[in-house]
Amino acid sequence: MFNIDFEPVGRRGQCPSEKSILECAHEQNVDIVSICGGFGVCGQCKIQVVSGEVSELTEQEIAQLTEQEIKQNYRLACQCHPKSNVKIYIPSESLTAPQRTQIEGLELNVEPDPLVKGFDVRMDPPSLEIPEPDDRNIWNALEEQHSIPRGIIDLDVQRALSVNVRDLNWNVSVALRGEEIVAVGAPSTRWLGLAVDVGTTKIAAYLMDLESGETLAKQGIMNPQISYGEDVVARIFAAGKSPENAAKLQNLVVDALNETVQSLCSQIGADTSDIVDAVVVGNTAIHHLLLRLPVQQLGVSPYVPAVQSALDVKARDLGLKIAAGGYVHFLPNIAGYVGADHVAVLLATDLAEAQDAVLAIDIGTNTEICLNYKGRMTSVSCASGPAFEGAHIKFGMRAAPGAIEHMRLSGTKLDIQTIGGEPPVGICGSGLLDAVAQFRLNDVLDATGRMVEHPLVRNHSGMREVVLVDRPGRDPITISQKDVRELQLAKAAIRLGIRALVESEEIADDAIERVLLAGAFGTFIDVESAMTIGMFPSLPRERFVQVGNAAGTGARQALISRTRRLEAQQIAVRDRYIELAGIPDFNRKFADANSMSSSAARSRQYEKTH
Amino acid sequence: MFNIDFEPVGRRGQCPSEKSILECAHEQNVDIVSICGGFGVCGQCKIQVVSGEVSELTEQEIAQLTEQEIKQNYRLACQCHPKSNVKIYIPSESLTAPQRTQIEGLELNVEPDPLVKGFDVRMDPPSLEIPEPDDRNIWNALEEQHSIPRGIIDLDVQRALSVNVRDLNWNVSVALRGEEIVAVGAPSTRWLGLAVDVGTTKIAAYLMDLESGETLAKQGIMNPQISYGEDVVARIFAAGKSPENAAKLQNLVVDALNETVQSLCSQIGADTSDIVDAVVVGNTAIHHLLLRLPVQQLGVSPYVPAVQSALDVKARDLGLKIAAGGYVHFLPNIAGYVGADHVAVLLATDLAEAQDAVLAIDIGTNTEICLNYKGRMTSVSCASGPAFEGAHIKFGMRAAPGAIEHMRLSGTKLDIQTIGGEPPVGICGSGLLDAVAQFRLNDVLDATGRMVEHPLVRNHSGMREVVLVDRPGRDPITISQKDVRELQLAKAAIRLGIRALVESEEIADDAIERVLLAGAFGTFIDVESAMTIGMFPSLPRERFVQVGNAAGTGARQALISRTRRLEAQQIAVRDRYIELAGIPDFNRKFADANSMSSSAARSRQYEKTH
Repeated sequence: MFNIDFEPVGRRGQCPSEKSILECAHEQNVDIVSICGGFGVCGQCKIQVVSGEVSELTEQEIAQLTEQEIKQNYRLACQCHPKSNVKIYIPSESLTAPQRTQIEGLELNVEPDPLVKGFDVRMDPPSLEIPEPDDRNIWNALEEQHSIPRGIIDLDVQRALSVNVRDLNWNVSVALRGEEIVAVGAPSTRWLGLAVDVGTTKIAAYLMDLESGETLAKQGIMNPQISYGEDVVARIFAAGKSPENAAKLQNLVVDALNETVQSLCSQIGADTSDIVDAVVVGNTAIHHLLLRLPVQQLGVSPYVPAVQSALDVKARDLGLKIAAGGYVHFLPNIAGYVGADHVAVLLATDLAEAQDAVLAIDIGTNTEICLNYKGRMTSVSCASGPAFEGAHIKFGMRAAPGAIEHMRLSGTKLDIQTIGGEPPVGICGSGLLDAVAQFRLNDVLDATGRMVEHPLVRNHSGMREVVLVDRPGRDPITISQKDVRELQLAKAAIRLGIRALVESEEIADDAIERVLLAGAFGTFIDVESAMTIGMFPSLPRERFVQVGNAAGTGARQALISRTRRLEAQQIAVRDRYIELAGIPDFNRKFADANSMSSSAARSRQYEKTH
Repeated sequence: MFNIDFEPVGRRGQCPSEKSILECAHEQNVDIVSICGGFGVCGQCKIQVVSGEVSELTEQEIAQLTEQEIKQNYRLACQCHPKSNVKIYIPSESLTAPQRTQIEGLELNVEPDPLVKGFDVRMDPPSLEIPEPDDRNIWNALEEQHSIPRGIIDLDVQRALSVNVRDLNWNVSVALRGEEIVAVGAPSTRWLGLAVDVGTTKIAAYLMDLESGETLAKQGIMNPQISYGEDVVARIFAAGKSPENAAKLQNLVVDALNETVQSLCSQIGADTSDIVDAVVVGNTAIHHLLLRLPVQQLGVSPYVPAVQSALDVKARDLGLKIAAGGYVHFLPNIAGYVGADHVAVLLATDLAEAQDAVLAIDIGTNTEICLNYKGRMTSVSCASGPAFEGAHIKFGMRAAPGAIEHMRLSGTKLDIQTIGGEPPVGICGSGLLDAVAQFRLNDVLDATGRMVEHPLVRNHSGMREVVLVDRPGRDPITISQKDVRELQLAKAAIRLGIRALVESEEIADDAIERVLLAGAFGTFIDVESAMTIGMFPSLPRERFVQVGNAAGTGARQALISRTRRLEAQQIAVRDRYIELAGIPDFNRKFADANSMSSSAARSRQYEKTH
């Protein structure tokens, strides 16, 4: 029996040499993807051996893994057995959806240099001889004990100060933000920060120790604004209808955040008043709705944001319950449909510093893409629609247990993988993407996306469809011609965006040296499938890096580092925005992007699987 | 007939050479004080001839006026007739109370350099090619058209900006406070400022043109907090009893200010949203109550303020309805009972720059006194009580029509002057002060303040009293021994404060070269009377200057001048505070101060009237 250490999940288990790493992982409830059932043919259960001895490479592994992957100790978990204690790294794409929650992201890799810092001081109680005013008293102590010059005190902090310092017997910890005191607490208070990525669908919140930069707790919740519409356009419309609606849309998010903050704090035994700084990112519409900024002009051409610049707002002015004087910093926006969350992605991925040609793509209902080429950053926004979230797809669903998340087709044999291994109940975005790619590879679809005559294709109520799962006594789970068209629209929007960027720099697709895929969906998808259907240009697989919730990482970096906050503002100013609606030949280019004749991808896929 | 120009009242009239200036003034409803009825014996109707020819000096004038006054063209209005067109200056003390309202004060004499400035800009409407965000658009315009670098926009201004700039067709006036946009209006908006002196009893509010520094409208109202107690100690106690009380005390003032602001604006046809900056002064307790700062520690030794420093607070955070992003600047306090209003007095009187030895005295329920000697400023606070406001005095009343405001006694002949010449209904502070001084000069009182056997003194219900006015069918208006004692306590508190300051510098009373009397009461009183009863040290009359509402003037200066605002902060830091409760031999010194054996004053008074 050997010890197996699964990272970054942080779980440990014991495994005999007879069992595969995959079997051991499943015993420990570590949900590694496995479509083919452990036969080494789907290539989905890739892991990296960090340390320890394991069995020899099998023929299946040699067929599935690239040379580079083999060099980097990548293995298929189903083919690999331990021969000593072993430490395993599971890449994000090899985990099923529930373990790849939206709160995972890039490591921070930032030296903490927070805007708010804590200082312990001992004050002298006032007397008739020296009746020192309370404000001057605390500044004197800060000056004498920490050489900090006199500044200002938040009014709400000041309102509580006289009672606080007396209750604490004139020994306190002062939270200082630049020249402003934003909180006063007991000596040695651990001052906290809150980073939040408010997505259209999901919200990720992180509680951090400002001094150490450590993430102490994190939580993902749904964005309750969804009751006003699944996409931001519906919410812009709702907010524009009445100020009451706009207030409601704001309150929904603020209330959810207050609950989350409460829960994060109780996880680590802290008080919400210990949180003295916050950073929030979101797309432009979400950003505006949360700040009660006008959104009507976002809904009509030329789609300009009310606010581009970074903002600092007192948390209490938003209704966010943290320390009395705490601020919320909003990262800047770039354009009406390229928001602060995109800036956070660019920040977290260090795109601004890249010397090679890099694309950063954050796929969602709206997809933002940035190309950095020779230090020039250019962004576009693509209305990719809600197909990836399962909307407008007959059996579409979110990435929840029972959702078909991966699919393989060999001739007429369909293999499916559901989230959590549950009986299938629907298809989530990555499953749909796989399905359409597999249909295309197996000539169920032609290059225009039309379902052709094929043993798997049937007619149902005048519409062609493929049955994925027969369910006795219930309608089978299918993918229809209409579903394929929905996905095509989404992928065409993204492809068009990439093309516009590449053409603006007058380079070929192949000049792109790295593609960074951010966001939950970008992390879950099969990149080969995305290339197969032509959503991404056909490039060697290793040029793609799935970076998880980079927006949340960017928010956390800006929370603990003043430098990163400034860099974010510079990114927003430097980044050039191209409005796709304004490019020449829009309609012809969109039709081109709709096609699935990605022959390069097909031949590469063919080489590997044959 | 000659033209007579009355300044600073600003009224004009015609007068034949047969009539006196006093008669002409009364015909024009310019209420010059006249106790003796125009016989040149009370000396109260002093005026200054600024230009033009007038009749020769009479014997009465030579007796009543000092040599210096004669040199400066001072005359008695009742003795002086025009011999050409004439321009007359009426000193504040020669006007009856209703014309010397609490809103009169020193001239500003300050070059306007406001913190908030207006700039007209023309913005470029955004297009699909250049979809400029609204915030960047306005900053671009400010930079291109006025070389103003990018700053921040108040959140509430930002919330209205997108709609505003479109409504105004991209031509706007921007109100900029340092680097922050605090309002956006139609092109060429005249941006206004509000200066307020919140007294314990009265509130004075001024509306100013920030660019020209001109006072456009002013208004005096009562402080509605009076329902919670006449002095600040009662209000501190009330606020400490419950947060609801504290909220109520704040709201009373804020509601009153909002009404006043509305009324001031309609006087000049402006909108309250044109007011982009405000300065508020008040004593420390009033200041704390208005800011909802804790006041309990003001009520117990060592009486420390929560806040000494100047504060800038968004008007909306106080509930004050001015421009969306407007701030209220609160001048700094000095000590628990030496507040921002005192700082404003020191500012308006340029006390900090004085090279001679100067006392500044702001008389009120609480009296603050500052001595500047060789550049060292020291202040004390004296609990002079409400006797000057007419409280705790049997027939006491505020300075309202019908109040006895001046009195002269010759042997047993009493002459009284009421405000507005109305039938007498009671006695206001200056009347009481005159009465006690006249009683002392005519030996109705002895040096300890005791009423002696005298034809005017009678016994009534076991208490000695003097009848001032017999009223058929009603109780006569009297001044009792107890009333005299109340006034003695008040004057003793002030005398003790002056002594403490003089002793702290180890100088004699006579070393004081100027005494500046601020505040409504300080303006109304007869200085000779105050010296007679020993409230002020006995000094040549011309060393006293009555400066009116200097606190309001200081507030206005700070409103229109950034320099003056900084100077106010320096004054608060430089000024040394002596807590009277802490001085040695307090009780003995207080008893000394209670005495009325001011022989010097008596002899001077004697010389003049005989």
